[in-house]
Order: sequence, then C-alpha cells, then structure tokens
Amino acid sequence: MSLLEETINSIKGQDESWRQKAKDRLDQLTMPHWALGRLMDLAVDLAGMSRSLQPPVERKAVIVMAGDHGVVAEGVSKFPQEVTPQMVGNFVNGGAGINALARQVGAKVIVVDMGVAADISAMAKSGKIIDKKVAAATANMAEGPAMSREQAVAALEAGIEVANSMAGEIDLFGTGDMGIGNTTPSTAIVSAITGTKVADVTGRGTGLDDEQLNHKIGVIEKALQVNKPDPKDGLDILAKVGGFEIGGIAGLIMGAAANRKPILVDGFISTAGALIACSLAPSCRDYIIASHRSVEQGHRVMHSHLGCEPLLDLNLRLGEGTGGALAMNVVEAACRVLTDVATFEEAMVSAADN
Amino acid sequence: MSLLEETINSIKGQDESWRQKAKDRLDQLTMPHWALGRLMDLAVDLAGMSRSLQPPVERKAVIVMAGDHGVVAEGVSKFPQEVTPQMVGNFVNGGAGINALARQVGAKVIVVDMGVAADISAMAKSGKIIDKKVAAATANMAEGPAMSREQAVAALEAGIEVANSMAGEIDLFGTGDMGIGNTTPSTAIVSAITGTKVADVTGRGTGLDDEQLNHKIGVIEKALQVNKPDPKDGLDILAKVGGFEIGGIAGLIMGAAANRKPILVDGFISTAGALIACSLAPSCRDYIIASHRSVEQGHRVMHSHLGCEPLLDLNLRLGEGTGGALAMNVVEAACRVLTDVATFEEAMVSAADN
Repeated sequence: MSLLEETINSIKGQDESWRQKAKDRLDQLTMPHWALGRLMDLAVDLAGMSRSLQPPVERKAVIVMAGDHGVVAEGVSKFPQEVTPQMVGNFVNGGAGINALARQVGAKVIVVDMGVAADISAMAKSGKIIDKKVAAATANMAEGPAMSREQAVAALEAGIEVANSMAGEIDLFGTGDMGIGNTTPSTAIVSAITGTKVADVTGRGTGLDDEQLNHKIGVIEKALQVNKPDPKDGLDILAKVGGFEIGGIAGLIMGAAANRKPILVDGFISTAGALIACSLAPSCRDYIIASHRSVEQGHRVMHSHLGCEPLLDLNLRLGEGTGGALAMNVVEAACRVLTDVATFEEAMVSAADN
Repeated sequence: MSLLEETINSIKGQDESWRQKAKDRLDQLTMPHWALGRLMDLAVDLAGMSRSLQPPVERKAVIVMAGDHGVVAEGVSKFPQEVTPQMVGNFVNGGAGINALARQVGAKVIVVDMGVAADISAMAKSGKIIDKKVAAATANMAEGPAMSREQAVAALEAGIEVANSMAGEIDLFGTGDMGIGNTTPSTAIVSAITGTKVADVTGRGTGLDDEQLNHKIGVIEKALQVNKPDPKDGLDILAKVGGFEIGGIAGLIMGAAANRKPILVDGFISTAGALIACSLAPSCRDYIIASHRSVEQGHRVMHSHLGCEPLLDLNLRLGEGTGGALAMNVVEAACRVLTDVATFEEAMVSAADN
C-alpha cells in the first residue's frame, strides 16, 4: 500500500467522547453559559482532535510550501516568476510577513521547495529549507495538465512526509504557500470542486486591474475546458489544474489529520489544498481550523463547501501562512479556556438563577 | 483646574506625520500592496499614537473595573449581586476567563474596586486590588439618578489616576468590567447618546428569556424617562444612568489617551465607557482600538457611533476584558509588521510590474 493510501486509511475523525468531556467542563466554568462563544467551540474541537482536556498547542510550526506555475506564461500575475525564489530567500532570512507573525506567536517557519522554477538546492543542502521538489514548475494548465498523476501523488506524499517527520515535535501546524501565479490554479480548483462559475470565484490576486482580471478568468476557463477535471476526484483535479505547493499543502493536511494534530489553514491557496485533502479523505475536515477569511472572493465559496467558519476577517490577502500564524493565538486562547478557568464549584461562585 | 479638566485639555489626537512615516514604510514591504490589510491600518494608528516606528506594546495590562448597580432591585439579571465580589475573588485567584486569556498574551490583570456592594477592603489592604470605591453600588436608576454629578467626576478621576499611575510601566492597556446588572446602564447609555430606541439596543445579558428581556427594556425606558439625561453631556449621562465601573473605564480611556497609550476596549460595558469618554473628550477616539464585536446587539450601534470596526467577531459576551486581552495579540502582530518585515530594497526582491 502506498504512503498516500495508508495515510488516507489511517485518518479517523474527532473523538466524540472527548468532545463531550470538554463540553461538560466548559458548561461549569465561572461565566454565563458559553460566554466565550467560538473559543469554547474551538476548545471542544481541540479536545476531540487530541483526545485530551489539555490539548497540546505550545510547539507550533508554519510550513510554507513553495512552487511555480507554468500558467504564468499566460500573464496572470503582476509579479515576475523570479519572485518565488527571492521570497524563499526572504523567508530563510526572516524578513517576510510570515516571519514577523510567526515570531509574534512563537512558531517556527519551515520552508519546503515543492517545485520552484530555480535551482535553490544550496539552501536545502545547508539545511535552511526542505527539498521536496517534484519538478521545476508545473506545465501550463491552459494547454494541458499541470502535472502527471504520478507527480500529483508525489506532491501529496511529500506533504505527508513533512507532517509525519514533524509530528513528534510539533503540536499545532499552520499551512503556508509561496508561488507567483498560484491564485490561478486555486481558483480552478474551487470552480472544479464546487461547480461555481469561474467569474464568481476569481479575484485580483496580487492586484490585477479589470482587464487583467477578465484575462485571468478566460485563462482559468480555458484550463478547465482543455483538461476537464473530474469534480469527484481530488487527485485528478490536483494533477490537471493544481500546483506542486498546493499538493504539498493537501498532503500536509492529510498527514496532520493522520497524526491527530490540529492544522490552521491559511488563505485562498491553502484552502484550495484543503479542498483537495477533503476530497481524498473527508475526515481531514475534523482537524482543519479555518484561520481567516481572505479578500479573495472565492475564499467564501471554499469555506462554505468545507463547512468552515473562519476565525478572523482582517482583509488579509498575503498568504505565506500569515493568517494561520495570527490565528494560532486564538487556538492557544481556546486551549487556555479549557485548562485555566475555574468552575463555579472550584471558585465558590454562585451560579445563575434559572 | 481639576484632574478631569486637566486631562481633557491634555488629550491630543494621533500625530499625522508619524502616521505618514509608517505608511511610507509599509508601502515598501516585500508583499503586494497593503496585503496585510487591517494589521497595516492598525500599525499606522499605533505609529500615530506613539509617535514612533517601533510602537511599544510589550508591557500589557487589563484593568478590570468592578462595581454594583442599584437597578438590580428591578430584577434585570439572572445572577445575584453577591457574584460581583465573588468574581473579584476569582480574578485575584487567577481562575476567571480574563486570567486565562491575559496569561496567554502575557498581560497583567489589575482589579479596581470602583463600587462593589460588599466590603472587600481586605483585598485592597493586602495589595491584591486597587481601592477606588466611590460608594457601595449606585442607586436604582429606575427611581432617580444612579449617582451624583460629584460621584461621576470621582469615578472618572479614579480611572484617570489608575492610567496615570501605570503609564510609566504599561505600553498597552485593555479595559475590563465586572458588575452584576451592568448591561442595563450600558444599554441606557448607548440609547441616550445615540438616540436609538431602547428595544433596538437591549440584549439578553447573561441569558435572559423573552419575558425577562421585555422587562429589562421597560426598566431602561423608565430610567431614561425619570432621569432625562442630556445626550450631549457625557457627565450627565454617566451620573444619571451609568455605573461606577463604567465611569472608571471612561476615565481609564481618557488617561490612556492623555498619555498617548493605545487602549483596547472590550465588549458592551467597556464600549459604553468609551462612549462617555469620547463624549467628554472626542480625541480619545484616536487611542481606542475596538477589540471585538460582542453578541450584545447594542454593541454594533456603539461601534457605528464611534466609527470603530472591531478586530474580532467570535461570539464573545463575557466582558471582564476578555476580548481586549485576545486582541492584544493582533496589536502585537500589527506592530511586528511595521518593525520586522523587510522592504523590497532591503530583501532584494523584485517589485510588481505596474
């Protein structure tokens, strides 16, 4: 059995009995019933994931999957492709948005080369990044499949391997992405999986004007027509209109779920990865925490399809894992509600007159 | 000149030149323009408040103002009044919701007795709380003014004194409240200041049913009819339909603003304090950060009146300063964006093709 099949088979949903134990404790805390709202909902989820009333969340990492996209030949991004390896360098040097926000919450930033269109093997050799390169950029999906089915499996398994290798030392994962042009495959994925019209889920990415936006919509429509991905087959969709870093993110989510670890899913690209993961293994959903609602308009459609309500809504549209890093604070806070607040009995406080 | 007048006169708005310096730097960061959205807006505000591109936010405190309300005689809360001093004890022992969330973000919790209807002076003598008691509970506002104008000034000045005494050691303040029945005066305040119908801003507090909610609306309407507070005079409103802890919160906000310190305003009760503070000194608004949108329906009306968009929306309705503590993480993150992210030039990353 392949690593992918083995992982899919090993994913079990949240544990209902631990969810109930958490609810029972939260019902008794010294506050009006469920007065900390979504923090308490999240605390129940964390208990169900970890099978514990002290869900571990202290050791944190954001995994930034980087890859390039052949479809940039169609002119779908304002930034040149050379920015992908430049930003990998920026991550390694600690100067990017994700480094700033990860530092605030005490999370490591781990960068994985899933398919950057430049030779950055020196950074891998010196241990600064993890080398899981499937190929140097996908093919142009407007002309044919972005990658072969074998490459799609390789991308997923790379993500699973990263999760498995870190599961012993990390309690709380965050997904991140870097790849010039990667809102384009992400939009194709959400359109393919949910059946929503491309125009209704295509956003301005890093800042397209109206004409550029219409062009991007046309490119995505063409990619879907040329490739005809099967809406029920996440592997087919990933191969035909996905990206290596999106496959890596999907694999990371599957690996986290298989290890019963919560994983904060970042923005539009990361959530495209979550759609692929949940298509292949629906129980992944139980370990996904939607961190924020991005400015990208298709993000709402993704969350609605997954049945997720994101924790934050702060007009972010950077990716890199920034929304996930920020929301790690909320996850920690939810955990504190479960572990640190006294019950009425413990604190000798009078309860409500019902 | 009284401390109150002196403080009002000393509050100056944000510094436009420092706001511009922050914008200039943020425009050059290695990311698509303004891709961290509201974190960047907030970073500009912090620079304008502190007159610095390294706004200090490390030393944090949540100030929990506690007071009781004569109007509980009308049966407006499900919890008995004895819960106020019991919860003060819970705060001091570290077992309440605010303790858990303050611990997560590394903030101190400082409890102030503004008017608790019980003798808790032993806790003040042993240094566990600050004693600023104006009186043991307000009078019943459904029958006459909640307090005298002199008591209202005393409550405001107590809050200012707390801010002034801590300004040398605290960078970032959060407001908090404890007081059984205090959604009732808070609702009267928002109705009086904004002219909104009482029924449109009255919520279920700690969990009233429909009949109890209608009764609460009637009590608040009666209090406004009996007292006829002047909508343009924050001091008159505070005296007639306010509370000692609400006055303390308003004073704390004014004191923070006078010291150019950012202050995270928590939920419904704290925002009632912000309405009073901004009525007396409109420039306070420049130092207020609205932390979250509460379940209490009148909270939206308050934010709209103040022109604030809250950072978080997580179905919280506890008060105590919990939403403010949680949002301190977002403030820290905003500061990190300004201080920790490299510019395109610093990181040698290619900019967008405009």
